[in-house]
Order: sequence, then C-alpha cells, then structure tokens
Amino acid sequence: MQERHISSAFDRDLEQLQILLMKMGGLVESSISDATGALMNADEELASKVHATDETIDQLEEEINQHAGRIIALRSPVASDLRTVLTVMKISSNLERCGDYTKNLAKRTTALAHMRPVDEAGPGLRRMAREVGMMLKSALDAFIQRDADLAEEIRLRDDDLDRMYNAVFRELLTHMMEDPRNITACMHLHFIAKNMERMGDHVTSIAEQVIYLVTGERSGDARPKSDRTAFDVTE
Amino acid sequence: MQERHISSAFDRDLEQLQILLMKMGGLVESSISDATGALMNADEELASKVHATDETIDQLEEEINQHAGRIIALRSPVASDLRTVLTVMKISSNLERCGDYTKNLAKRTTALAHMRPVDEAGPGLRRMAREVGMMLKSALDAFIQRDADLAEEIRLRDDDLDRMYNAVFRELLTHMMEDPRNITACMHLHFIAKNMERMGDHVTSIAEQVIYLVTGERSGDARPKSDRTAFDVTE
Repeated sequence: MQERHISSAFDRDLEQLQILLMKMGGLVESSISDATGALMNADEELASKVHATDETIDQLEEEINQHAGRIIALRSPVASDLRTVLTVMKISSNLERCGDYTKNLAKRTTALAHMRPVDEAGPGLRRMAREVGMMLKSALDAFIQRDADLAEEIRLRDDDLDRMYNAVFRELLTHMMEDPRNITACMHLHFIAKNMERMGDHVTSIAEQVIYLVTGERSGDARPKSDRTAFDVTE
Repeated sequence: MQERHISSAFDRDLEQLQILLMKMGGLVESSISDATGALMNADEELASKVHATDETIDQLEEEINQHAGRIIALRSPVASDLRTVLTVMKISSNLERCGDYTKNLAKRTTALAHMRPVDEAGPGLRRMAREVGMMLKSALDAFIQRDADLAEEIRLRDDDLDRMYNAVFRELLTHMMEDPRNITACMHLHFIAKNMERMGDHVTSIAEQVIYLVTGERSGDARPKSDRTAFDVTE
C-alpha cells in the first residue's frame, strides 16, 4: 500500500513535469507564429507580446529544472523514469533556445519597418516559419505519444527546411547584388532565415531526444544536412 | 567504513565526470583557435582537423551524459552533488554547441579561399576569436575553482565581445555597399562573426551555471547586452 502511494505520487510528479514542458512548447509554437506575423505586418505590438512571452518561456525552463532536480533528489528515479526526467530537461533547453530566436526575430520588426521593403523574401520566410512551427508541433506530439517514427520523420523534414533556407539565402544575395540599397534590409532578412534554420536544428534535436527516450538508441549522424551555403561560391 | 568506501567511490565518479568535462572544454578551446587559423590562412588541412575534433567533442558529450545518468541512478546524489552533476550536463551541452560553431567556421575555409579577400575584416574577427577563446578558458577555470567572481567577470566580458561584433557588422556593411563584388565574401564573414558572438553567449551561459553552482542563485537578466544590430537602420 505504502509503495503504491509513493509510486502514484511519483507518477504525478512526472506528469506535472511533462505538463510544464508542453506548456513551454505551446508558448514557443505560438511565439514563432506571432514573431513572423509581427515581422510581415510590421506589427510592433505583436512584437512586444513575443518579448513578454519569452520571459515566461525562460521562467518555465527554470521551473522545469527545479522540478526535475526535486524529482531526482526526492524520488531517486531509475531506468526509463530517470531517462524521462533528463530528456525533459534537455528538451526544455532546446525550447528555451527557440524562444530566444523568436525574440530575436521580433526585435527586428522595428528595424525592418523602417527599411526599403524586400517583398520577394516574404513568402520564403513565411514558408520557413510555417514549416518550423509544424515541425515543433509534431516533435511535441512525438514526445507525448512516445512515437519514435514520428520523431524520425521530423529529422527528415529538417532537410526541407535547410533547402528552403538555401533558396532564401540565394535570393537575398541576388537582391543585394542588384541594388546595394537593399543590403541592410537583406542582412536582417538573412538573420531571420538563419534563425529559423537554427530553430529547425533545435526541433530536430528534440526529435532525437524522443527517439532516444523511446528506443534507448542515439540516432547518430545519419541525418541529412542540406544547408550548403557554407560552401557557396556565388560570385 | 562501508559508508566511507561508498563515499569515496562516489567522489571518484564525480571527479571523473569533471575530468571528462575539462577534456571536452580543452578540445573546444583548441578548436576555436584552429578554426580561426584555418580561416585566416586558408589552411584546409587545419580545417579538417577541426572537423575531426568536433566528432570527439560530440562523443565526449554523450559520454558525459551517460556517466552523469549512471551517477544519478546508482548513487542518488542530493544537494550540491546533484547540482554538480546537472551543471556538468548543462555545461557540456553548451560546449557541444560551441564545437558545432567552430566546425561551421572551419567549413567556410574552402569557400572563402576562393573569394575576393576582404582583408579589413581579418583583424576584427581574429580579435573576436581570441576574446571568446580567453572567455572560455576563464569559464572552465571558474568551474574548476568554483569561483563565482571570475564567472561574473565573464558575463561582463561578453559585452565587449558584442561590441566587437557590432564593429565587424558595420564594417562588412560598408564593404558590401562600396563594392557589390564583396557581397558573397562579406556574407560568409558575417556568419563567422555572428557565430563567434553566439559562442560568447554559450560561454556566458557556462559562467552563469558556475554562479548558480557556487551561490545557488540565478544571475537573472542583469546581463548587459550590446549586440544592437537588430535595431540597426544603417542605410
């Protein structure tokens, strides 16, 4: 009886930890969409909302770390329970980075609002934002459902995101070369694209944590990587 | 007697964990310097060395995670010991990101070797690399010596690094506007500068972990942040 009591209090602790993580993930998801909306519509009010949400996201990470620390110290979890706790901590740190990136996107709203618009870059960036948002949603679903196959799909989708980034990068280069007055705006837009590509890397890392949690195996480096801009010699 | 025996085996485990972390940190330090050397001297051999070292860095992170997981599962550490284990895991994840950034720097060696040189950007980037390397060294020292004051200094130094980045960013903008043939090379150089600035953020995060480990308190957001490029409207 006593053991059962302890075990169900433990289950509640674990559940609470995962609820915090889902809350954090949900906020990051909506922030990605808000930050993109703010950028596209030069909506500074929405940009401040993203800024405020990032603070909540940071607090949630802190709360998760403390709750996880308490679980480890008080309940001494082992095997798959311990793996769950450590995985939640790692995922929350990936989510926190994504939150930082969206805050950084939103910060550029004001700057871009005062620049020559580079309309052609909009659709590419919007596509990237939508893709990374959907990847994050799937990664969180994969975690909750302990679905390694879904997580595996996300790893492959990151490749598409990298391709989208390459396309935006080339487009921006072309605009800058055509007219040097586009350079400053394009540098900002490039930042934005690169941040989205990096968010994709963090979402992929979340997916890899899920695979590890479910299968106990690391996915290795088989992941395709299509950001080729480091090798670009477009002159 | 039994307890003593257990406790000293535990101490050895903790020590081993920290040795792994220092090894990982040392490799990241030398990679930063190698990657910069490779870039500046178009040394592709040195660039491949950085690539190979990044694999070792990744393996070390994995080893640290496993070792930490074993300590938690087998020894049920509490209080400051648990904090040490969790801090090591967090620091190793920051180090792994820094390793990724240096690999990314090194990857650009080949591309840049085939481009119009932008000589003026060299000194600024070299200064940034030196600064981030020294910051990392201090952060690892602060961890080993549990020196919160030294860690606090690093947080402030990150501000200098941000200023250096701003200077490089402006310089690159000017070069691009002066001559569009510089654009591609400058985009690569800008990536490099941004990656160094981000490494600074990770080193700062390591310093903050050390402060937390020593004082039990989070340093909050009092950290100065001098990357103002998101607000730049230089046209």
